[in-house]
Parts: sequence; structure tokens; C-alpha cells
Amino acid sequence: MSPHKAPDSSRRSDRSRRAIYDAALALVGETGYARTTIEGIAARAGVGKQTIYRWWPSKAAVLMEAFLDLAARQAEEAEGEGEGEGEGGIPDTGDLAADLRLVLRATVDELNDPAIAGPTRALTAEGIVDPDLGARFVEHLLDPSIQLYVTRLRAAQASGELRADIDPRIALELLIAPLTHRWLLRTLPLTHAYADAIVDYALGGLSAEPRGGAPRP
Amino acid sequence: MSPHKAPDSSRRSDRSRRAIYDAALALVGETGYARTTIEGIAARAGVGKQTIYRWWPSKAAVLMEAFLDLAARQAEEAEGEGEGEGEGGIPDTGDLAADLRLVLRATVDELNDPAIAGPTRALTAEGIVDPDLGARFVEHLLDPSIQLYVTRLRAAQASGELRADIDPRIALELLIAPLTHRWLLRTLPLTHAYADAIVDYALGGLSAEPRGGAPRP
Repeated sequence: MSPHKAPDSSRRSDRSRRAIYDAALALVGETGYARTTIEGIAARAGVGKQTIYRWWPSKAAVLMEAFLDLAARQAEEAEGEGEGEGEGGIPDTGDLAADLRLVLRATVDELNDPAIAGPTRALTAEGIVDPDLGARFVEHLLDPSIQLYVTRLRAAQASGELRADIDPRIALELLIAPLTHRWLLRTLPLTHAYADAIVDYALGGLSAEPRGGAPRP
Repeated sequence: MSPHKAPDSSRRSDRSRRAIYDAALALVGETGYARTTIEGIAARAGVGKQTIYRWWPSKAAVLMEAFLDLAARQAEEAEGEGEGEGEGGIPDTGDLAADLRLVLRATVDELNDPAIAGPTRALTAEGIVDPDLGARFVEHLLDPSIQLYVTRLRAAQASGELRADIDPRIALELLIAPLTHRWLLRTLPLTHAYADAIVDYALGGLSAEPRGGAPRP
């Protein structure tokens, strides 16, 4: 429709890029990281493989960008639903337990969504045995969401809800690691009730006595 | 030396079996699960591949048994050193925090030991993308050690050290999942200080106030 060539070609590029991301995520989820190839992604996306080679130096680079795009779309979607974890970070209603339950339940839903879980599982497994890929995975995909927890926990320390003597960067691992553990190793079902229990146990503590105090009621 | 054929042949079998386990663990740690083959294991162990096929139906079966053997040897060694986690389970000195610190520190040492970490990492990664292998991994290798935690936490509930209203099978995940998370994803160094912090945070809780009580000191 436009008389200009540039916007048209840019629209075509956007369409190809989207098709390549979708193909890459679908393939890695279905056949695993090792068996996913640039050729396979090109064929499934309906583009020439030169198109992919022009934009990305390697299979790892395409996949990483496809994941970043997926994460960005999820974040937008979550924000649309007012469900936290978007660019605005973890909600801060002043009730830390409620905010964490909301975010961990949303994480459970994501990990139980095959469209997200398949490719994420494949990339995580590859990162476990390939330190370079693993480091990029952590830097680009994991660390940004870890920072959201650090920010929310620091706010809870400032408001007096969270112990002042703990390191938020360690504390958040008590919240997110159990979910990752269940999900990756498939030990037991990953449910909202589980997310709630993790928040309750982590905030309240497992010990029957508060530190330096009388037995709990 | 023995005039009997049976013991001799059984000693030879033991030697071959040990060589096959060692070769299987070394190879999977060095080249990954996918590139480890029965032929490769046989060549490295100095046995014919028919020897392996006679004893095990598949590569997965050899590796699982090699891991079980490794775990059993570790347990014996730990018991020799009086370091818990052996057949006797997690120590129960009446001081839950001290017992957990001991066990989590020993876990940190194991995960930082390349001889154990390499193959374990390879098998874990494969189990993440192969549900059948993952299920066998959990059943034979993970669940037995999970049961040791359940037993120790139940004892702590009985003695009044641990909240009576928590599920030990969930509570233990706050202790072991953070270590697994750091180790698998290589987010930050896995140290004794980290293990101690996890025990402190999990038992004491992250919250500034004990449940239903006055603010903590």
C-alpha cells in the first residue's frame, strides 16, 4: 500500500523475523537443542537459510534472540493482565507474601505452558553442559528476572517486612530455586498450592522458634 | 592363585565391571551424554563391547548403574569420615541447624568435585530433555537422598525443633533446591558460606516478624 519501498521491506523483515523465532522455538522444543539446525529453522520458517545467516552468526544466537523476544512478549502480556513481572517488576502492594504468591503462581503457569516450557527446558539443558551458552542464558534471560526479586526484597527490607540482616540476592533463591528444581527434574507436580507453600515456608521459616525468642504459638 | 575357576572369573568380572563404570563416567563427563557410546565405553575400559551388551541392555542402563555405584562409594567414604549422608542418613545431634549445615556443606564439596560433577551434570541435562531417563534418575539417585531429609525433618518435628504444620517433603526443597540451582545454572559460586546462609534463612525465615507474634529483636 505504501509508495515507499523501505517500510514494505521492513514489514517483510518483521514477518520473516517473527517466523524464524517461532520456528526456532518450536523446533528446539520438539527435537532438542542438538538436533535443531539453521537449515531446519529456515525450512520451517519458509525463508532461505541465507536470510538467517545474514542476521545471526550462529544457531545459539538465533535461539537466544528468539527467547528474549518470547520473554518480552510474555512480560507485555503479563502487564496487560496486570499480573506483575512485566517491565514494572514484581508488584509492591505492601503485602510481600501476597505479591510473592502472585508472581510464583504466574511462574508456575509459565513453566506448565508447553509452548514456553519445551524450548526453555531444551535451552536450559544445553546450558548445563555448555558453559558459554549457559553464561549467556543466565546473563540475558535469568539475571533480569533475578533483579526484579532483588528490587522487591530490598523494598521489603526498607519497609520493615523483611529481615534487615539478609542478603536479598541469596534470599530470592529460596523462592525461585524450588520451582525450578521441581520443573527441571520433574520430581512432583508444580502447582499453585506448591508456590503458596514455598512463600509461606520461606517467609515464616521452618524453625519452630523465632531467632532469639520464645517458642512460636 | 585359587584352584577354583569361579572366584577367578568373578574377580575378573569385578575388575571389568569397575573399568566399565569408570570409563562410562569419565566419557559422559568429558563428551556429554549424547556422544557417549557403548563402543566408546568398551574401548576405554579395555573390554569387548559384547561384554557390555551381555550385562546391560542400553547405554542408559550402564550409566545409571555406574552412578549408583559412584553414589554408594561416596556414601561409604562419607561414613568412613563420619560425615553424615551415608547409609545412616543425615546426622541427628539434636541441633538441626548444625546437622543441616554439615550435610549441605558436604553437598557443596561433592558438587564442586569435577569427578562427580561432570558426569552428574551430563546425566541431569539429559534427564531434563528425556522424561524416561529423568524419571529413572529421580527414582534411583535423587529420591533416596530426599528421603534422608524427610526422615531428619520428621525427627526435628517430633523433637519440637521444626514447625509441626509444615510438610517435610516440601520443606527440604528450600534447602536442596538453591544448591542445585546455583550448581546447574552456574549463577554464582557454590561455597560453604552459601550453604550456611541457606540453612539460616530457611530455618529462621526471611520475614522480619514471626508468624502471629511481635516483631523480632
